[in-house]
Amino acid sequence: MPESPLRVIPLGGLGEIGQNMMVLEYEDDIIVIDAGVLFAESDMPGVDFAIPDITYLVENRDKIRAILITHGHEDHIGALPYVLKELDVPVYASRLTHGLISVKLRERGALKDARLNVVEPHAPFKIGKFRVEFFRVCHSIPDAMGIAITTPLGIVIHTGDFKIDHTPADGQATDFSSLAQITADGVLLLFSDSTYAEVKGYTESEKVVGEALDSAIRDAPGRVMVATFASLISRVQQVIDAAVKHGRKVTVVGRSMSNNVNMALNMGYLKAPSGTIVSMKESRQLPHEKVIIVATGSQGEPTSALVRIANGQHQDVEVVPGDTVIISASPIPGNETVVAKTIDNLFRKGANVLYSRIAMVHVHGHASQEELKMMLSLVKPQYLVPVHGEHRHLISHASLGHSMGIPKSNTFVLEDGDVLELTAEEGKVVDSVQAGHVFVDGRYLLDMHSNIISERKRLARDGVVVVSVTLSERTGEVLTPPDVASSGFAELDESQDLFERTSKMVLTSLEQEGLGVLELDQVKAKVTDSISKFLFKETRRRPTVLTVIDQV
Amino acid sequence: MPESPLRVIPLGGLGEIGQNMMVLEYEDDIIVIDAGVLFAESDMPGVDFAIPDITYLVENRDKIRAILITHGHEDHIGALPYVLKELDVPVYASRLTHGLISVKLRERGALKDARLNVVEPHAPFKIGKFRVEFFRVCHSIPDAMGIAITTPLGIVIHTGDFKIDHTPADGQATDFSSLAQITADGVLLLFSDSTYAEVKGYTESEKVVGEALDSAIRDAPGRVMVATFASLISRVQQVIDAAVKHGRKVTVVGRSMSNNVNMALNMGYLKAPSGTIVSMKESRQLPHEKVIIVATGSQGEPTSALVRIANGQHQDVEVVPGDTVIISASPIPGNETVVAKTIDNLFRKGANVLYSRIAMVHVHGHASQEELKMMLSLVKPQYLVPVHGEHRHLISHASLGHSMGIPKSNTFVLEDGDVLELTAEEGKVVDSVQAGHVFVDGRYLLDMHSNIISERKRLARDGVVVVSVTLSERTGEVLTPPDVASSGFAELDESQDLFERTSKMVLTSLEQEGLGVLELDQVKAKVTDSISKFLFKETRRRPTVLTVIDQV
Repeated sequence: MPESPLRVIPLGGLGEIGQNMMVLEYEDDIIVIDAGVLFAESDMPGVDFAIPDITYLVENRDKIRAILITHGHEDHIGALPYVLKELDVPVYASRLTHGLISVKLRERGALKDARLNVVEPHAPFKIGKFRVEFFRVCHSIPDAMGIAITTPLGIVIHTGDFKIDHTPADGQATDFSSLAQITADGVLLLFSDSTYAEVKGYTESEKVVGEALDSAIRDAPGRVMVATFASLISRVQQVIDAAVKHGRKVTVVGRSMSNNVNMALNMGYLKAPSGTIVSMKESRQLPHEKVIIVATGSQGEPTSALVRIANGQHQDVEVVPGDTVIISASPIPGNETVVAKTIDNLFRKGANVLYSRIAMVHVHGHASQEELKMMLSLVKPQYLVPVHGEHRHLISHASLGHSMGIPKSNTFVLEDGDVLELTAEEGKVVDSVQAGHVFVDGRYLLDMHSNIISERKRLARDGVVVVSVTLSERTGEVLTPPDVASSGFAELDESQDLFERTSKMVLTSLEQEGLGVLELDQVKAKVTDSISKFLFKETRRRPTVLTVIDQV
Repeated sequence: MPESPLRVIPLGGLGEIGQNMMVLEYEDDIIVIDAGVLFAESDMPGVDFAIPDITYLVENRDKIRAILITHGHEDHIGALPYVLKELDVPVYASRLTHGLISVKLRERGALKDARLNVVEPHAPFKIGKFRVEFFRVCHSIPDAMGIAITTPLGIVIHTGDFKIDHTPADGQATDFSSLAQITADGVLLLFSDSTYAEVKGYTESEKVVGEALDSAIRDAPGRVMVATFASLISRVQQVIDAAVKHGRKVTVVGRSMSNNVNMALNMGYLKAPSGTIVSMKESRQLPHEKVIIVATGSQGEPTSALVRIANGQHQDVEVVPGDTVIISASPIPGNETVVAKTIDNLFRKGANVLYSRIAMVHVHGHASQEELKMMLSLVKPQYLVPVHGEHRHLISHASLGHSMGIPKSNTFVLEDGDVLELTAEEGKVVDSVQAGHVFVDGRYLLDMHSNIISERKRLARDGVVVVSVTLSERTGEVLTPPDVASSGFAELDESQDLFERTSKMVLTSLEQEGLGVLELDQVKAKVTDSISKFLFKETRRRPTVLTVIDQV
């Protein structure tokens, strides 16, 4: 019997949807599963997205044998450019996922240094003391994989993101027979997707969406625009199929959608009869009832094609009455409001808009409760660690586990950074390592506790007021009346008088209290404090106050 | 036959959920229906809420005869303190609504000048050339009313917010028999609630929630906390009923909830056997399984009782394992993320949390499609104006109208500010008046196009950089190296060197280009511009740059 425990350390994806990263450690061998981003939320002003804090991996860089990627969505691959900059580690992924990672690394000039490997399903390979085998699962992107990892303590199954779809758009169902073989001799631990663990029943098949798209396109009197995720290749295939059937041509709009469609066509993941996909220029020559436009923007992203179209700001496409717009996606939590505004603006321009609330034009890619139970009943793990979900989703999933006979003591609802040690007899959380977000802000990485974020929130709430004072270096005497400026604080007409009084107040307090004899930093702090109090008394606002003191 | 048209001018609530205000005008008589707030959205930084722009009403103040209020929710009464400051007009409302308005005006010292009138249902009264009659509707607050307004051109029905609930918590169903009598001779125009016009079928009855709350409270092993809207008096009654049945005491936490509960108890809208409602102090003496706490915070409001409890920051209540928390509300669009975080934090503290996604602990107060059809089929209006909803909800409602036989030419999907003129023969939009939001920011009102909002958004994105320069008034010579400060822009360690180089750059450009001879404003503009460009080149960020120039 092995004496060492298996260590499980989630560095992302537990307690939030996104930024997925799981660490599996046995003695001197570490493997990492996924390296994703978390899309920025409203409490992260000015931030592009977040990536996992990988301090633990950097500290243990010599032990890391590989990064395994389950599928090509941003929340599973988006952090790779940053992680690979710190860690020189081979990456293993399925063919399409490999293609998407390559595109991403090439854009950042980081492809040639990366050690990327394509993995076929059911082709086990060794990594350190682990034996790794990928198996197909169904998700809203082709070539999605679960991973079976044989460890000295037993088999670990990671489902990746999955659902059970018996009629998927790409014909590749979740491969239960392989999984049954792999798991026949018992499974130590199951990591399973919790995103929809709150939802009863089964997730609808992609087939239902295919049928809805087909009839919407058949019945559309004019042009059709379909907005979806750039990575949702199977949805694009469904649109192409409907286009062929109903004698329409397809134009792809937007950089990320075009890149992905081209890549998928080249790799054979998308199939279109020659002449089906046409350029924007060609499509403009066609009558509207012969045209389908596929675009990004299903999440209301401000710079996306659909949003620019909805706002009348797209250079090539203008919505006209008779157009049909299909939003083939549901809003990611936090995006509800911007998506709703986009739909409203399209209606205002006279389009007929079909969206998931009123038509079956989207299904998501995650297992609901009955599918999760199916996975549990097939895998029959000794231990269950729900992954990929906010805390309440993990709790829901753990309850499903209990209802399927897994004891509570063998079910672990973890937080990012928790160190869970498993032996054949028991599991317990023994430690916690540094984990959390690193914010990506343009070319900068910000610590999640950076003052910059809290400063920006305060600036957004009440604006900024700047006061500049010039003192005589020799006497400490104030040489000019303090100058006051502001942004985001008050209307010009109300601020003029207020700023004059602020200036006078500062002058008086500097002169009366003889602050001029204090150290510069002390003067600055005193002035800032008195201005803050004065402005709060006058306006009940708490702007950021910046005091600048020049000495001449 | 009257020769003048009836003018319909929505000033809020069309194209958004909230800030409801409808204007009805016939010759020299205007009546206003509702005066609500719009809860601040994420693109309104630092703003408390929005109220309607009432420029049109102020310009026509002499014509305004009354403000009629349908019910006591904030999005129907919240703007009254601001509107009544500008317009000295009588307000008519049902008894509970009158109570809620009084509380609100008293808090602002504006009660004694207000001309508030209590209206009973089925008691018609005259206002100018109009005859007004309120009738009961079911909604998620007691004493909700629809309004029938007899005009020289025919009867206008405004449903207010409503649903059809045959088993409402307060026993007061939507009064169809009165409505049938009022509308027997034909109806010119129907304004009808569109909030849930996208949703098929019927809205569930409050009775279902009562049963779910009852069994949750019966089965709870320890303390129960119920979070809901402060105005949802009937939900509080259901909790009190369950408390009595299962031998628990009820404590109310939070100012707005306490105020409303006290008012409703005093007015007889809430009934509790003596001793059922206890103070926090008394409840702390009781065993946990005898306690129910009712609190606000169902929308994740940062300062609410529930959120402070969830974050471990409430002075009186600490969540312990064994507690059951019931979120008896669903998130208002835009609040999904904060509500989800609150639920997660409660789970983390060991509570069992029941919320609308996993248990039937809330139903909303708006009619679904079958109920809207019922209203249409009873009222049989000549013209339909869907109200209360985002644009796509109005569109959905208009489609329902068409399906019920109202011609497209008689259905009007309006925008706020549109002027619709109706005659016996036809209706058309003839004009558009000023309408939109006025933002309430503490004690200030901001124009919706105020620079302050866009400045705050920019500050939130990239922060602020301040540069101060002292020039000799006489020679234009720079007397000290320019001083640079910032907030929300860059980490201290990276900014130090950057700011030194910024200072040098400013100095060089001032000296080389001889800017000292320009006007002060020109110098300021030049310096600001060169700093913006320099910082963008260095950081790819676009902070707000404030330049202050002192002359000595």
